[in-house]
Amino acid sequence: MFNRVAVIGLGLIGGSIGLALRKVKAAQQVAGYDLGRGVSDRARRIGAIDEHYSSLADTVRGAELVILATPVGAMRVLLQNIAPALSPGAVVTDVASTKAQVINWAEEFLPPTVSFVGGHPMAGKEVSGVEEADASLFQNRIYCLTPTVRTRPAAIKKVCSMIEALGARVRFLEPAEHDGQVAGVSHLPFIASIALVNTLARSGSWADASLLAANGFRDVSRLAAGNPEMYRDICLTNSESITRWLDEYMATLGDLRRRIATHDKDLNEQFGKAREVRLQWQADQDMSR
Amino acid sequence: MFNRVAVIGLGLIGGSIGLALRKVKAAQQVAGYDLGRGVSDRARRIGAIDEHYSSLADTVRGAELVILATPVGAMRVLLQNIAPALSPGAVVTDVASTKAQVINWAEEFLPPTVSFVGGHPMAGKEVSGVEEADASLFQNRIYCLTPTVRTRPAAIKKVCSMIEALGARVRFLEPAEHDGQVAGVSHLPFIASIALVNTLARSGSWADASLLAANGFRDVSRLAAGNPEMYRDICLTNSESITRWLDEYMATLGDLRRRIATHDKDLNEQFGKAREVRLQWQADQDMSR
Repeated sequence: MFNRVAVIGLGLIGGSIGLALRKVKAAQQVAGYDLGRGVSDRARRIGAIDEHYSSLADTVRGAELVILATPVGAMRVLLQNIAPALSPGAVVTDVASTKAQVINWAEEFLPPTVSFVGGHPMAGKEVSGVEEADASLFQNRIYCLTPTVRTRPAAIKKVCSMIEALGARVRFLEPAEHDGQVAGVSHLPFIASIALVNTLARSGSWADASLLAANGFRDVSRLAAGNPEMYRDICLTNSESITRWLDEYMATLGDLRRRIATHDKDLNEQFGKAREVRLQWQADQDMSR
Repeated sequence: MFNRVAVIGLGLIGGSIGLALRKVKAAQQVAGYDLGRGVSDRARRIGAIDEHYSSLADTVRGAELVILATPVGAMRVLLQNIAPALSPGAVVTDVASTKAQVINWAEEFLPPTVSFVGGHPMAGKEVSGVEEADASLFQNRIYCLTPTVRTRPAAIKKVCSMIEALGARVRFLEPAEHDGQVAGVSHLPFIASIALVNTLARSGSWADASLLAANGFRDVSRLAAGNPEMYRDICLTNSESITRWLDEYMATLGDLRRRIATHDKDLNEQFGKAREVRLQWQADQDMSR
């Protein structure tokens, strides 16, 4: 299908994309690049790439499709660095969690002969690294694409074929729409989780209270163990949407606080609404698998 | 060890206590009582109790140890109802999530010939009901006891033997200390979870955004599916500690919001602190199992 695909960044996502594309023979060659010591070698050994290169230019040269699978914080410099080596007609896509900022950088740095299509697969694991890569990671998952009015239809079509090869389902969104929605369902949760842990940990009773923390704490705090630099880069590239959701969240908490302080006997109605929404979401998830 | 033990409320916790006590033959007879249709019958069939009764008085009569395993909202009326039927010298304990309020009710309604020892096992499952009861639910878990200056040492000793039979580890706390600590590690998490779901669900974009919600949302929102009446009763009986923690939580969120809005490049330090605390907690948990 593709002659040459280049994957820059061979972590869980980049590695899984490589594995999946090679598994269904979607490309004649999958070239890989990663800055981490020994990562490219491991990626080749597990079959995520056919070949790896020690320079970005060599990796992307001649590639029909270039997939940027690095943290969002690295995207700006990466786009600048690959720009001169990209072949005319190449399609570049990324997998970053925030889209508007990355698209701005792509429009600033990529040559006009090259097309950029922003992407974001809604898949992940608690663990990271190419060792955890999994060809079925994207199976049946939603994969957001955020083309703009300037994106060429042929480029969108190419990225859609790649997504199809991964077994994922395409969902088209405006970049700002995407960033607003993931700020709510993905970024607000990690900030809520981190804030919970930091609130408890700075209290004098944490050493004792932590012994009483059980499954409830475990679930709500799990995201707090995530990568701090990745979280920071997401916040820095999506601060407007995130602060808007944080304001809404603090308003909800303030309302609940008032009801709890005044011993509102109808509190269970607020809790019941949340229960219904959560159960419905779970049912919808189970249906779509 | 005990001649007769009565378990009032045969849900996950009451049923698991019955199973565990019968498994190690800690009592000559475990009597059970539950208001739910058919629940007592099912409890007997799975071996959680030896016998069940249709009246509270018959259940507790002659019992050396009475275990109240109903939701905290039912405790006040329950204590009033069992008081006249309790045998002199009986020890009453409970498993409710909040302690100060229950102890006040026990002191108000129980006769002076009877001892009350507040208890709270730090164990649970996502599921509820006697069908999910499990003799090993308390194995190696912390079981809080909150005796007061008025609690008889012999009564504390009896409840400690029960906890030992369950395979749990006793932890003594002042009632107010207990309520303050669980408000942080157990009640604040469910309120944070519920507030997240209600914040997202009342936005116009929820129908679309819910499709993008993945593992992060799943974890942080899981507690929102819990029992609304149980959550309400916990809030009503522990409102002071909970509102104090909510104020701290909102202050932490407000601080993070300010840092995100001003593009603070050191945000990862805040996130890194949370990561360290969460990883340490997990390591401590794994060690104690």
